Amino acid sequence: MRRTLASALPAATPGEEVRLQGWVHRRRELARVTFLVLRDRSGLAQVVLPAGTALPPEETPVEVTGLATANDQAPGGVEVTEATVVALSDDAETPAVELWRPSLDASLPTLLDHAATTWRHPVQRAKWELAAASLRGFRETLDADGFTEVHSPKLVEQATESGANVFTVDYFGRPAYLAQSPQFYKQQLVGVFERVYEVGPVFRAEPHDTVRHLAEYLSLDVELGFVEDHREVMACLRDVVAGMVDGIRRYGASAVERLGIELPVVPEPIPLLHFRDALSIAGAPADEPDLSPAHERALGEWAMAEHGSDFVLVEGYPTANRAFYSHPDPQDPHWSRAFDLIFRGIELVSGAQRLHRYDDYVRTLEQRGYPYEPYATYVEAFRRGIPPHGGFAIGLERWVARLVEAPNIREVTLFPRDLHRLAP
Amino acid sequence: MRRTLASALPAATPGEEVRLQGWVHRRRELARVTFLVLRDRSGLAQVVLPAGTALPPEETPVEVTGLATANDQAPGGVEVTEATVVALSDDAETPAVELWRPSLDASLPTLLDHAATTWRHPVQRAKWELAAASLRGFRETLDADGFTEVHSPKLVEQATESGANVFTVDYFGRPAYLAQSPQFYKQQLVGVFERVYEVGPVFRAEPHDTVRHLAEYLSLDVELGFVEDHREVMACLRDVVAGMVDGIRRYGASAVERLGIELPVVPEPIPLLHFRDALSIAGAPADEPDLSPAHERALGEWAMAEHGSDFVLVEGYPTANRAFYSHPDPQDPHWSRAFDLIFRGIELVSGAQRLHRYDDYVRTLEQRGYPYEPYATYVEAFRRGIPPHGGFAIGLERWVARLVEAPNIREVTLFPRDLHRLAP
Repeated sequence: MRRTLASALPAATPGEEVRLQGWVHRRRELARVTFLVLRDRSGLAQVVLPAGTALPPEETPVEVTGLATANDQAPGGVEVTEATVVALSDDAETPAVELWRPSLDASLPTLLDHAATTWRHPVQRAKWELAAASLRGFRETLDADGFTEVHSPKLVEQATESGANVFTVDYFGRPAYLAQSPQFYKQQLVGVFERVYEVGPVFRAEPHDTVRHLAEYLSLDVELGFVEDHREVMACLRDVVAGMVDGIRRYGASAVERLGIELPVVPEPIPLLHFRDALSIAGAPADEPDLSPAHERALGEWAMAEHGSDFVLVEGYPTANRAFYSHPDPQDPHWSRAFDLIFRGIELVSGAQRLHRYDDYVRTLEQRGYPYEPYATYVEAFRRGIPPHGGFAIGLERWVARLVEAPNIREVTLFPRDLHRLAP
Repeated sequence: MRRTLASALPAATPGEEVRLQGWVHRRRELARVTFLVLRDRSGLAQVVLPAGTALPPEETPVEVTGLATANDQAPGGVEVTEATVVALSDDAETPAVELWRPSLDASLPTLLDHAATTWRHPVQRAKWELAAASLRGFRETLDADGFTEVHSPKLVEQATESGANVFTVDYFGRPAYLAQSPQFYKQQLVGVFERVYEVGPVFRAEPHDTVRHLAEYLSLDVELGFVEDHREVMACLRDVVAGMVDGIRRYGASAVERLGIELPVVPEPIPLLHFRDALSIAGAPADEPDLSPAHERALGEWAMAEHGSDFVLVEGYPTANRAFYSHPDPQDPHWSRAFDLIFRGIELVSGAQRLHRYDDYVRTLEQRGYPYEPYATYVEAFRRGIPPHGGFAIGLERWVARLVEAPNIREVTLFPRDLHRLAP
C-alpha cells in the first residue's frame, strides 16, 4: 500500500485503507478514546484508537494503518480509525522541549543546544522551509535569465578581501584561509560565463557576539557582466528578491501559514536614495562615512512611511569606505557605484559595480596603501579582458531572520556557528 | 537597443540593426575584408569589417553594432555587416593559450595555472556547463519528490567520520575541523524534514596525488527516511542520476554538442550485483574486503557487455569494511546494506541504509573499538526517534570527469585544490 501523507489524508476516500508514517506528535488519553496525533513532513493527522491503547512515547517514528474516516472535528475533516500502530524504532527519549505545543517555548541556548530536536517543531521548521523556498526562487530567477551556477573554492591562498576576520587552516603543513566570500572568483568567472551565481558557505572570524553575525553563513552571490552601471545591477537584484518572495509563495505557502507572517511586496522599482540623502533622512551629520544600524532603521521607517515599502536601496556610498574593487562614480569619484539594500531597517544586501580595468586596480591598491602581491592573481585577471560588471551578495539567514522578525539570526540558522558555538 | 546574443543572431531579420557584446574571439585580416569573430556566453558570431580595420586584440570585451545580414558562409547563416566595434575595456593581454583554436592544446599545469582564462574556451567551458545542468536536474528531481534543501555547517567540532584526512582550523584559538561530509547532519535532519539534500563543498586532506581525488570537491548529498531497506535508497539514486542526465539534455544541449559526447542512458532498474558476485565477475579472490579500481573497471566492462549499461550497482559490501553507521544485512550481518554505483568503471556514488537505533550505534562503536565521546552528539540524536533511513553522496566533479572521459578530475574542476595546489 502506498504511503499517504498527512496533508493528503483529507483527500482520501472515506472508508479507504490508508498507511501513514511519521512521528508520534502527541498522545491524548481520554475516558473513551485514545488520540494519536501523527506528524510527518507535510503536517499533522489524527488517529483514533480504543481507550487504553498503549502507544510509543512522543517523537518515536511509527507507521499507522487504518481507515480514512470523515470527522468534522479532525484536522482537514478526515481522521484514521480502526488503526494499527507499529513503532519503526525504539522508544524516543523525552525531548528537551514539548514539541506538540503550538509554540516553541524555549530559551535561545535550549533551542540551539537541541537544534536537531527543536527544528522538528512545525513552526520552527517553517523558518527553514522559507529559506529552502527562497533558494528555489533565487535560482529559478537567475536560471531563467542566462546565469550559470558556479562553485568556487573555500580554501584559498590569500585572505579574500582583507587580513581581518579570517580563519586559518593547516593545509598540508602550510597556511591556507577560509574564503570570506567568492568575490574574487565570481568576478573572474564573469570572464567565462558573463553571468554567474553561487550559493555557498562563507566564513567570517567575527570576534563580536552580535544578534546579526555568524562565523559561517550562506551567501547568495551574483555577478553579471556587460552592465551599463550599478543601476543595472540593482535592477537584477530587485528581480532576484522578487523571485525569492515568489519562491516562498509557490513552495513555502504552508510555512508562511504556520508562521502567520506577511510576505513583503517588492516594489518595481525599489525606492532609491543617494547616500547623501540617506544621511539627511536618517538625521546623521553630512560627513558620516557609513550608515549605522540606527540610520538603517530610520531609513526603513522612511521607506515604509513614504513609499509603503519594506525595501529601500541606497547608492553612492563614499568610495573610500567601500571595498577597493568598488567602482567610483565617474562624475565625482568621492562617491561610489556601491549600494546596499535595506530590508525592514536592516542591511540585507551589499553590491556594486566593480572596477574592471587593470590600471584602476593598481592605482586603487596604491592609493589605499595595500600591497600588490597578495592580490596579484586577482588583479592580473583584469589584464585579460573583463567587461564592465557588478554584483551583490545576499545573506540567506539575515533574509529569513527579517522575514520572520527573529530577534536573533541564530534562530533561523540550522546549526549556527559563532565565537562560542561550534556544536551541535 | 536590446542586446542580441550570438545564438539569437540567426533569428534576426535581415537588415535589422543589432547590438552584440562579447569578447574578440578571433581577428582575421584578409586581402579585401577583416573578420571579427565575437564570442559571448551563447556562442560565436561573425562580424565583417573593411580590410585594414584596426581591432582590439583577442579577449578584449567589445560591443558591436551593425546590420544582421544573411550569408551562407557565416555560422548560423547570418553575420553582422556595416559594423562599429567599441572596446569595453583596455586591450587584453595575449592569453597563455590560443582560445580561438577549435581545441584547447594545453598541458594540465597550463590549464590549471591559467584557469580563469582557459575556462573561456568554448569546449572547456562546456565541461562546467554539464556540471551546472546536472545540478539543476539533481535539484529538480528531488524538489519534485518532497525533499528539502538543507545546508549544514562546514566548521565542525569533531572530525566527521574519522580522524584521518581532516583539515584543522584555528577557530578563535581552539581547534575546529572542516567537514569531510554532511553525513552526521543529514541523518539528524531526516528527523526534521524526512527527506533532505545538500549541495556543498566537502574537504579531504588527501595526502595522495591521484587523478581522481581533490582536497575540496562538491558533494551532492541525499538522505531519506521511512525506507524499507537500501533498495529503496538505490531506486531514489537511479531517479536522481536519470534526472541529472535529463538536466543536461534540457539545459546543457549546446555543451554536449560542443564536447561531442554521448550521454549515458540510465536503465530502469540499473543492473545490480551482490558484492560476492561482483568479486567473482571481477576475477578477485572471494575474501577480498573491497573492490579495487581494477575490479571496478572489470565490472564496468561486464555491465556494458551483459546489459549494455554504463552503470552497475553493487550491494552488500562487507560490513566491517564500510562506515560504522552502515546497516548490516539482517539475514547475515557479515554483509551490509551499503552499496556503490559504478559509472563507466569508476565508483561514482557511495550509499547505504544506515543504522537508526541508538543501541546499534553504541554496540557498533564498541565492536570497532571507537571511543564514544567524539561521536556523542551524533549518536545521541538516535535516542530521539530517527526512522529507518538511508542515503548517498555523488561527487560532482567525478561525475563530469566520467561524462567527458577526462583522464584527470582537475580538468573539470573550476579551481581545483590538492596536495600541491591552492591557487588560483
